[in-house]
Amino acid sequence: MIPIPPLPNSSRVNAAGHLEVAGCDVVELAREYGTPLFIYDEQQIRERCQEYRLAFSSRTNDFEIVYASKAFTCLAMCQLLAEENMSLDVASGGELFIALKTWFPPEHMYMHGNANSRDELQRAVSSKIGYIVADSLDELSIANGLAGEQGRKQPVLLRITPGIEAHTHEFIQTGKLNSKFGFCLAEGKAEEAVRHALGSSNLELVGFHCHIGSQIFSTEPFRKVIGLMADFMDLCHKKYDFNCSILDVGGGLGATYTAEDTPASVDDLAEVIVGSLRTEMTRVGLPVPHIVVEPGRSIVANAGLTAYTVQAIKTIPSEKTYIAVDGGMSDNLRPMLYQASYEALIADRPDAVPSMTADVAGKHCESGDILVKEARLPEPRPGDVLITPATGAYGYSMSNNYNGQPRPAVLFVKEGTARVVIKRETYEDLVHLQERME
Amino acid sequence: MIPIPPLPNSSRVNAAGHLEVAGCDVVELAREYGTPLFIYDEQQIRERCQEYRLAFSSRTNDFEIVYASKAFTCLAMCQLLAEENMSLDVASGGELFIALKTWFPPEHMYMHGNANSRDELQRAVSSKIGYIVADSLDELSIANGLAGEQGRKQPVLLRITPGIEAHTHEFIQTGKLNSKFGFCLAEGKAEEAVRHALGSSNLELVGFHCHIGSQIFSTEPFRKVIGLMADFMDLCHKKYDFNCSILDVGGGLGATYTAEDTPASVDDLAEVIVGSLRTEMTRVGLPVPHIVVEPGRSIVANAGLTAYTVQAIKTIPSEKTYIAVDGGMSDNLRPMLYQASYEALIADRPDAVPSMTADVAGKHCESGDILVKEARLPEPRPGDVLITPATGAYGYSMSNNYNGQPRPAVLFVKEGTARVVIKRETYEDLVHLQERME
Repeated sequence: MIPIPPLPNSSRVNAAGHLEVAGCDVVELAREYGTPLFIYDEQQIRERCQEYRLAFSSRTNDFEIVYASKAFTCLAMCQLLAEENMSLDVASGGELFIALKTWFPPEHMYMHGNANSRDELQRAVSSKIGYIVADSLDELSIANGLAGEQGRKQPVLLRITPGIEAHTHEFIQTGKLNSKFGFCLAEGKAEEAVRHALGSSNLELVGFHCHIGSQIFSTEPFRKVIGLMADFMDLCHKKYDFNCSILDVGGGLGATYTAEDTPASVDDLAEVIVGSLRTEMTRVGLPVPHIVVEPGRSIVANAGLTAYTVQAIKTIPSEKTYIAVDGGMSDNLRPMLYQASYEALIADRPDAVPSMTADVAGKHCESGDILVKEARLPEPRPGDVLITPATGAYGYSMSNNYNGQPRPAVLFVKEGTARVVIKRETYEDLVHLQERME
Repeated sequence: MIPIPPLPNSSRVNAAGHLEVAGCDVVELAREYGTPLFIYDEQQIRERCQEYRLAFSSRTNDFEIVYASKAFTCLAMCQLLAEENMSLDVASGGELFIALKTWFPPEHMYMHGNANSRDELQRAVSSKIGYIVADSLDELSIANGLAGEQGRKQPVLLRITPGIEAHTHEFIQTGKLNSKFGFCLAEGKAEEAVRHALGSSNLELVGFHCHIGSQIFSTEPFRKVIGLMADFMDLCHKKYDFNCSILDVGGGLGATYTAEDTPASVDDLAEVIVGSLRTEMTRVGLPVPHIVVEPGRSIVANAGLTAYTVQAIKTIPSEKTYIAVDGGMSDNLRPMLYQASYEALIADRPDAVPSMTADVAGKHCESGDILVKEARLPEPRPGDVLITPATGAYGYSMSNNYNGQPRPAVLFVKEGTARVVIKRETYEDLVHLQERME
């Protein structure tokens, strides 16, 4: 049986004995569009958006689901998100540009970033972006100046570093998190930012943002951070008469990269966030703010997969077997950057019984360019289509031209039909910034 | 005093008190061309090429210096290399395409790669490439078929995995290196490849290639591997009457990333390679083959630097200070991928006495996006131009659009003049593979 997840829910073995996703034969897709190839189950992305919206809407009327562009963005993705009534987190002038290109409503965008330039902030303010999530006093000053020039009162949130860092099942509470991001609660830094924002005549301080980590499996850290933020809201209310109307608790819910990953459900997450916010605001005696969550990975990771073609098979006697494919760290940096684990499957015969253990090696000139360690596979052959599930997040978004490798095409598949949402780069594209030179 | 190296040799403090490289004011360059910005001292690249050629030519007439494209390539780089009589290592269809675009002579190219596709090999064979460095039996079979179709006898080398792995000052000899690359000497794998190549009627086996590691500081591992390869040449001569006419010992010489790095000199490397090859070939009683070395990093790393603009400065009380700049893991992945160390300097006042220790943080939405840890700097201000030296290798070549960040421009500077060799990406470029869609 094929493993769902990490594969998209629509995956099955078709009459040809091939892997099929959303009604499309993956071996046929590889033949038609070439490899490496990113394939997204469009309906699964939509359903994950709907799952988030439903989980919160069944518990509160005052919420917003903000998709984190950095996990994967493109014009088609922004259009899909608008259709699903999602809001958008953009973390640079580039992500803002892509979203605006699709007429995504700027009032539903949150601008993040620890090093936004004046030009990027200018683009945000002049596009009438919903919110700037300010990360430093320098940024507050620049945003205030720009808003003044535009005759605009710019809504801002402050990014608060709560001193909690969470990964998978564990979290640590340091009180004073050493992070490049935000204003730390400790030693009055966050308070100083509140005073600065309240004193900025062209800014309207509306709330706080906090983000506690990535690939989190447990909901407990969210309960903890909401308690700390309630205390801070209480302090700001008493000391500065500030009423926090938006609390953005960031993203972080994990994805199922391999069968061993068991992240909390979206429903559990909503229960903990909405429930603890009610409890904590009651405790401090303040109204419950508009609640914002910012999922990225948990929306797209498992909706995507990558198809490669097997090029060569090599056995090191009494050591191991390497299966070399036509992609690698140019399309998926996560194994090298984070020692991330993935699974592998032969799309030509996903049901075949695994008969060997092998490392799936990328094509790049680095020993470390290994996509999957110790994959269990049926005897592979050159020309086979090998797929890695759960590559929908932080794969294409970090893709590069290392070793002169053109970036893959990206497909959205739905009800048996595929559409190209990002074209494959050509060799000519590799020099297009050089040929147009004066 | 400013530190040379890791800065290019032409670096100095000019009359304005700014950092100057090859007669160009780095602060002015940043203002004119924007940041992040890659700046290469063109003359230093040329001099490193000449240094390699001189070091070998003073010891032998039978050698070839092959630049490893993967470290940094572009049209201007290929043109420069041709002018300096360098040969070229291309490791993919893309690197081959870029080189051919400049009319770089294909007979001076070596094609590498552990997973070359039929299409890539086809391009290599039909362009009449000098050599294919074959990495697997599958590749040998495909290359043989393609050469036959073209009516060509294709010269090939075999990539041998000698069981030595070297990094900085140390090396290990395992006898049977577990690597995705090449044919291991152990258990007859390399011999099997020799038989396969000799039996391929459209291939001409001309020699062997081996590569023992990266960022090597000591010459000793080269001596060791040449001994092992001499034994193998001896075995192939006796058993298969094969005369090895080319030995390619790969690259690997280190760069000076920080003042603490002290790689061997090119002259020392040539002395050890040429000397041990003579000694070892005398020992086994065979003629000395044409010697090939493949430097990449040691040609370009210290000729390049990156200029950033300081955006925000943030102090975490009793923890540390972060200086946020407008680039990061999109233009330099090495700190995140390999925990690589760099230094930092304020180009506006390189001579100022450092007064603080700070981490230089990139602009990306990841806590790990730190370019330089514990840099010693004079009090920085927003707007300052901060530079990281020694980013000429594996910086631009792994650059990407993470967080919607357009890739930097690349300048070659020489005698007070700058020329753009790769244009800065624009926001429009971020969607150019989407807009041209049918």
